[in-house]
Amino acid sequence: MLVTFLSDFGLEDAFVGTCHGVIKRIAPDAEIIDLTHGIAPRAVLQGALVLASALPYMPVGVHLAVVDPGVGGRRRAVVLRGEDGRLHVGPDNGLLVRAAERLGGVAAAWELTNRAYALEPVSATFHGRDLFAPATAHLARGLDPAELGPPVDPSTLVHVEVPVADVGESEIRAMVLSVDRFGNAQLNLEHPDLVPGTRAEIDGRAALVATTFADAAPGELILYEDSAGFLAIAVNGGSAAAILSLRPGQGVLIRTSPQ
Amino acid sequence: MLVTFLSDFGLEDAFVGTCHGVIKRIAPDAEIIDLTHGIAPRAVLQGALVLASALPYMPVGVHLAVVDPGVGGRRRAVVLRGEDGRLHVGPDNGLLVRAAERLGGVAAAWELTNRAYALEPVSATFHGRDLFAPATAHLARGLDPAELGPPVDPSTLVHVEVPVADVGESEIRAMVLSVDRFGNAQLNLEHPDLVPGTRAEIDGRAALVATTFADAAPGELILYEDSAGFLAIAVNGGSAAAILSLRPGQGVLIRTSPQ
Amino acid sequence: MLVTFLSDFGLEDAFVGTCHGVIKRIAPDAEIIDLTHGIAPRAVLQGALVLASALPYMPVGVHLAVVDPGVGGRRRAVVLRGEDGRLHVGPDNGLLVRAAERLGGVAAAWELTNRAYALEPVSATFHGRDLFAPATAHLARGLDPAELGPPVDPSTLVHVEVPVADVGESEIRAMVLSVDRFGNAQLNLEHPDLVPGTRAEIDGRAALVATTFADAAPGELILYEDSAGFLAIAVNGGSAAAILSLRPGQGVLIRTSPQ
Repeated sequence: MLVTFLSDFGLEDAFVGTCHGVIKRIAPDAEIIDLTHGIAPRAVLQGALVLASALPYMPVGVHLAVVDPGVGGRRRAVVLRGEDGRLHVGPDNGLLVRAAERLGGVAAAWELTNRAYALEPVSATFHGRDLFAPATAHLARGLDPAELGPPVDPSTLVHVEVPVADVGESEIRAMVLSVDRFGNAQLNLEHPDLVPGTRAEIDGRAALVATTFADAAPGELILYEDSAGFLAIAVNGGSAAAILSLRPGQGVLIRTSPQ
Repeated sequence: MLVTFLSDFGLEDAFVGTCHGVIKRIAPDAEIIDLTHGIAPRAVLQGALVLASALPYMPVGVHLAVVDPGVGGRRRAVVLRGEDGRLHVGPDNGLLVRAAERLGGVAAAWELTNRAYALEPVSATFHGRDLFAPATAHLARGLDPAELGPPVDPSTLVHVEVPVADVGESEIRAMVLSVDRFGNAQLNLEHPDLVPGTRAEIDGRAALVATTFADAAPGELILYEDSAGFLAIAVNGGSAAAILSLRPGQGVLIRTSPQ
Repeated sequence: MLVTFLSDFGLEDAFVGTCHGVIKRIAPDAEIIDLTHGIAPRAVLQGALVLASALPYMPVGVHLAVVDPGVGGRRRAVVLRGEDGRLHVGPDNGLLVRAAERLGGVAAAWELTNRAYALEPVSATFHGRDLFAPATAHLARGLDPAELGPPVDPSTLVHVEVPVADVGESEIRAMVLSVDRFGNAQLNLEHPDLVPGTRAEIDGRAALVATTFADAAPGELILYEDSAGFLAIAVNGGSAAAILSLRPGQGVLIRTSPQ
């Protein structure tokens, strides 16, 4: 069965490779897709958003996600079964639930307590390797998730709140959720009501409401719906984040023409 | 069938992982080799050069490449069939042709217009996910590329120009094409006529013409033919780019002894 | 057979992808786990340490590692067979031996001299592609390593020295081996004798001896045994390396309470 893997481990160290090895030792036939390991360190909200945007494009499988600032502490380690049959493995800190809910909701959940399916000893600081990767591998081999530990009431799972943009008649007060490699800034408003071809202002600067970068002149700011369905800011041929000094968490004031 | 994948998507975000998922949903047996996703954002020329250097080492397969500043605009999306049987998928902006020509030339080409082989709706800004990855996957499953859209006259494909170094009797006026992770700078001259063991000057600094780093003293500048066959500058044990402040696009004046 | 691959090539360029292609052309059924390619350029000691920490978690296979500042020079290219049946391929500069010794020792070794199993011509600066990857692929297909070249006396293999921390009654003079993505600093002391819950000082700053990050208050320094078994410094929710300006090679003075 297919495994996907998202984390904040980065690729500079062998954390990700080590988890791959652990999975392949237990489940030699498992195939692993690395969603990304570039989530900012400990950025649970960013991880949850990226996971929710990416998983709908993945084959149904076992979906491992580890952004886990509370590793070794009191947060639970869990596996969720989605209504669509996907299994989600990771810490119970809000990382997993948003994706599962977007895909139909959580049908059942279990806490990972059965050490028969972990590496012993379980280290205090690398549950990715010692707890989550082995559980993922056993599930990929077909293990019933109920074997991994006691059931968890899905209503008790931790959620992360995504602050919602404030949308007025001709003004949007939004927040930057993330900045991608191209300097495009994703804002906290899904499926915005945009009229391509009209004008807007972003923090006082003129921008074009557009559908893609090439709609604008080189260097021109655009406001658009990104490929994940969020309101976003870009510059044709450049980095909006560099030009507007945007970073995650920052507020942005957008004025659009009244429609 | 084997798939290779090169892009400027980086690995910080889930763009690459998402494309992998799209391919595996359509072609579960496809194997994907990531050539690199570290092409500088929108650097079509760099992407074309890296692709042309790397593809000869790849098994014959479907070769996806996406560096696509004009995404969603008027540039064509294409698949090329090389004389050697390889299939090249990506934007028609010069990214693909150099590699295909190096491997024997373009035998045929088609435009990707048949939405039956795309994800619907096709977003305006992520054709990697919605258009190119699905086409790649269908081709990897054996689809006839002619099913993807109308034929394109290969002579109309967009080329990128690589500026050629100016080679004199004892002077080379060259340009930095790229700087690698080690700080080695690749210049725009293929198969240079070098005599290892002789002396040279790079922007006025003494350098050794060498075959490898260890030929020089620690910290010494060398001029050599790199593993892709280009004239290049390195420092034994250090970063030539840091020491000489080299970056892509920059001019370099090299003096060699007359031969 | 499974292949693992560690290097200092980074992922910005196509070096890693090119080696994957070379391996898959020779051994189409080989599966490759990338341990990491983020070893600092030419950092043989760091590579040796990361390899030794990661390999015990890998399936038995052919283990390719390339951190090779002496490429093309007089250092030998070798394959080692471990007592546990693993094969280790790479330069004879200390990169491989530590991992092999940790896993039971080197049973036999050979020098890679037989060009029948290399790509011709072998470049002077990219033995990963031209020498090590092909050898790895042939071994993964079952080639007897003795076919690759003459035997090497294991006692002549190059070792790297890891400087050992100076442990006193209540004081440890240690050195930073590496800093990970989270800013956690690994020191040169394995299996330290720590008493969680006691207090310590790190370069004069108060710290808690702990087992995991969440044992401390947000922003508090901790001293702990990391998941590879080394003494390490972290900050709950932050970067110890940033706060203490730590970098590899740097000395650190730790005071613990006498026990």
